Amino acid sequence: MEGEHERTTGARAAEEHHADIYGEDGAVLSSFLARIGAAIADRDTLTLKHEVDDLHQSELGDLLEALHPEQRRALVELLGADFDFSSLTEVDEAIRMEIVDNLPNAQIAQAVQELDSDDAVYILEDLEKEDQDEILSQLPFTERIRLRRSLDYPEETAGRRMQTEFVAVPPFWTIGQTIDYMREDKNLPERFSQIFVIDPTFKLLGAIDLDQILRTRRAVKVEEVMHETRHAIPATMDQEEAAREFEQYDLLSAAVVDENERLVGVLTIDDVVDVIQQEAEEDLMRMGGVGDEELSDSVLSTSRSRVPWLLINLLTAFLAASVISLFDRTIEHIVALAVLMPIVAGMGGNAGSQTMTVTVRALATKDLDIYNAGRIIRREMGVGFINGIVFAILIGIVAAAWFRDPNLGGIIAAAMIINMFAAALAGILIPLLLDRFKVDPAVASAVFVTTVTDVVGFFAFLGIATWWFGVP
Amino acid sequence: MEGEHERTTGARAAEEHHADIYGEDGAVLSSFLARIGAAIADRDTLTLKHEVDDLHQSELGDLLEALHPEQRRALVELLGADFDFSSLTEVDEAIRMEIVDNLPNAQIAQAVQELDSDDAVYILEDLEKEDQDEILSQLPFTERIRLRRSLDYPEETAGRRMQTEFVAVPPFWTIGQTIDYMREDKNLPERFSQIFVIDPTFKLLGAIDLDQILRTRRAVKVEEVMHETRHAIPATMDQEEAAREFEQYDLLSAAVVDENERLVGVLTIDDVVDVIQQEAEEDLMRMGGVGDEELSDSVLSTSRSRVPWLLINLLTAFLAASVISLFDRTIEHIVALAVLMPIVAGMGGNAGSQTMTVTVRALATKDLDIYNAGRIIRREMGVGFINGIVFAILIGIVAAAWFRDPNLGGIIAAAMIINMFAAALAGILIPLLLDRFKVDPAVASAVFVTTVTDVVGFFAFLGIATWWFGVP
Repeated sequence: MEGEHERTTGARAAEEHHADIYGEDGAVLSSFLARIGAAIADRDTLTLKHEVDDLHQSELGDLLEALHPEQRRALVELLGADFDFSSLTEVDEAIRMEIVDNLPNAQIAQAVQELDSDDAVYILEDLEKEDQDEILSQLPFTERIRLRRSLDYPEETAGRRMQTEFVAVPPFWTIGQTIDYMREDKNLPERFSQIFVIDPTFKLLGAIDLDQILRTRRAVKVEEVMHETRHAIPATMDQEEAAREFEQYDLLSAAVVDENERLVGVLTIDDVVDVIQQEAEEDLMRMGGVGDEELSDSVLSTSRSRVPWLLINLLTAFLAASVISLFDRTIEHIVALAVLMPIVAGMGGNAGSQTMTVTVRALATKDLDIYNAGRIIRREMGVGFINGIVFAILIGIVAAAWFRDPNLGGIIAAAMIINMFAAALAGILIPLLLDRFKVDPAVASAVFVTTVTDVVGFFAFLGIATWWFGVP
Repeated sequence: MEGEHERTTGARAAEEHHADIYGEDGAVLSSFLARIGAAIADRDTLTLKHEVDDLHQSELGDLLEALHPEQRRALVELLGADFDFSSLTEVDEAIRMEIVDNLPNAQIAQAVQELDSDDAVYILEDLEKEDQDEILSQLPFTERIRLRRSLDYPEETAGRRMQTEFVAVPPFWTIGQTIDYMREDKNLPERFSQIFVIDPTFKLLGAIDLDQILRTRRAVKVEEVMHETRHAIPATMDQEEAAREFEQYDLLSAAVVDENERLVGVLTIDDVVDVIQQEAEEDLMRMGGVGDEELSDSVLSTSRSRVPWLLINLLTAFLAASVISLFDRTIEHIVALAVLMPIVAGMGGNAGSQTMTVTVRALATKDLDIYNAGRIIRREMGVGFINGIVFAILIGIVAAAWFRDPNLGGIIAAAMIINMFAAALAGILIPLLLDRFKVDPAVASAVFVTTVTDVVGFFAFLGIATWWFGVP
């Protein structure tokens, strides 16, 4: 804090600072990129260090993503020991791997020691086993043990995401002692919002939020004000489940315990926010028929990763086509059926995907359970029936007018009611069944629902037409 | 903390407690519901109070959602002043409205005073203007002014979501004075993770995280350790943008300032987590063609809210149908075309929605910007071309074999390549254009993309066939 001016314009300074790097649209400014690019071209290390010095790790991450691959490599190389490795936790996996693969293991080992353990693990976990071991072997003993422990927990568990740095005190200390300890100890974690209370064997006894410490008189004993850690997270708990605990109980951080209830780390809300984002994104991507691809993936790997979904859809498309081929003689007589049939199938598909979207999301957030499933199924059937009638009337009138044939209007109307109802049933029952059989409904629902609406739509429309017009 | 046993089993106690209410599948246990239901039927207030006393607000919320509407009303009535209003922030809007509408305004006014201001605003904002005014008029002056100020900010802004309770101190205080003040003051917010530094006119000067206070000696002045609040949030900032600030800079809380840079409130990470969830959900729902509906909505309101999307899709379906009708004479001659044409359109639709999903998501997370748009467009074109060829070969062979006509195989293969390429272009360009014109790409992309893939699919397939077979 230097000087009155800077102080009173704190809020404005934030804006200005922000404006330094990002444009109106939230993208990194091209003028900033040009400056950095020029400095890289000139191999002007001094300017580069000055430019990136003030950047938050996420800002540096955004800069890395905006640069060309060669520039990226050159920047990291030129910054050397001044390169903030924590920025690597903020970039696409492909970019992270590209940068890390390009660095000598010794430099990575050096850098990793400066990081919080959760960030270090985040960078190390994607490396080849061989590189990982080499880097770990170059670390000091305690550091190595800590990281190894995190890495030994399965991927996507609380143990993998936890930070192994935390503040823990015995229950018989006073608040005063605790505060004095924190004033003295230089090895505190960079940021923390609660401290833990443990016994000599590291068994977790409780926790105190920092605001509680600040409200309490110095003479009071820790055990008198600590609260039971009702939300201790087993290290093997899935990160998504841990995130739900955070959300449900509005936690800022939570103790992570091993199978003997010993404190091994702390999970913090910032990691959890990433998990929440990631999980919501996963559902969205899966429903859109794409897997874990990233923007930085290449053409070939993207193309390959999208083929399986298209292949499955192809099978269902042939199934639908074979339903149509059952009625080829009818279509030959009344070609208007070929014109109108995609409407019946398509509207069913859209209605089905509405119901399915609601169902998949409600299952993911646990809002849909055995207590309301019956009510929701009845509701969706009701919606399917009402919207079926609404669109049956609408489409029936248009079709009858278009082809000047009331029969055609009546037939498409009847098929619409049937298919909208089938769409509602498929949209709710298929995700529920998949969930019951432990198949992720976000991945598999869409194929099955479209299959139902295509097959039922074509069969109902062409079948009723064949029967009504009496085509042999 | 009473007694050794309870202490050493902190972690296990959490598990047990949890198991009290929720089953394996995360749903509220039916045995618990039955107990509550019986107590409600007996109007056994004592048992009810005992059962819900220990519940976290979100657990009480889950219980409310699992009960029948009559039970819900009876429970709230029986609990009376003991009903924890903050649980209303954890339930569906429809359920919240149903409960609140059923309570006298005087009781709501009483309850609202006990809540944090952000929770109070959350409940009040959905009420009729009339009820809102009546409730506010029954509140003490300062409380009323605070809530009014929040409610005066537009919906979905930081000002609406902020908490107006915060700790603020002058810059010339020492850390010791600050700690003493917190020990004395009984009106501190329930939870906080930083304190703010302000001048006499409430202008924001800086902030200090609680862990920083605890590391600092008593004699040090606040202004010496405070950091500039680089991330002060204007009260009128959209909540989604505020959430992105939290995510980018890993904030736990942030000052909210008015247009004169005066501190008016604090935004906390727990509210932001809700916003993040909500926004991710919104995107998913919009892409699935559903709006802001909730599970508790009625059949009629659900049905009504889904009609507009279906109506728009109907228009595009008729557009596609009219493309088919251009070629009705060709279909009359070669009915196999009617059988195969949905495959071309459908596969294009699926490929287009893959590209679109990736694009919409990348736009939402700001991962896609002007620096990589060119590369991503080229990548998607490449993917569309490669997958077009892959599926052209596959479908061409199957179609030729099925109808024993190599011409048909060649025609459908050519149409597939064209449509998969069109799908890729539409999948990336349509969301980008919508975003450029400030239309939410999540809402509108799907319709346009499907229109393109249907129209191009039918036109290419039937057009090539007409030309090849020379149908007049």
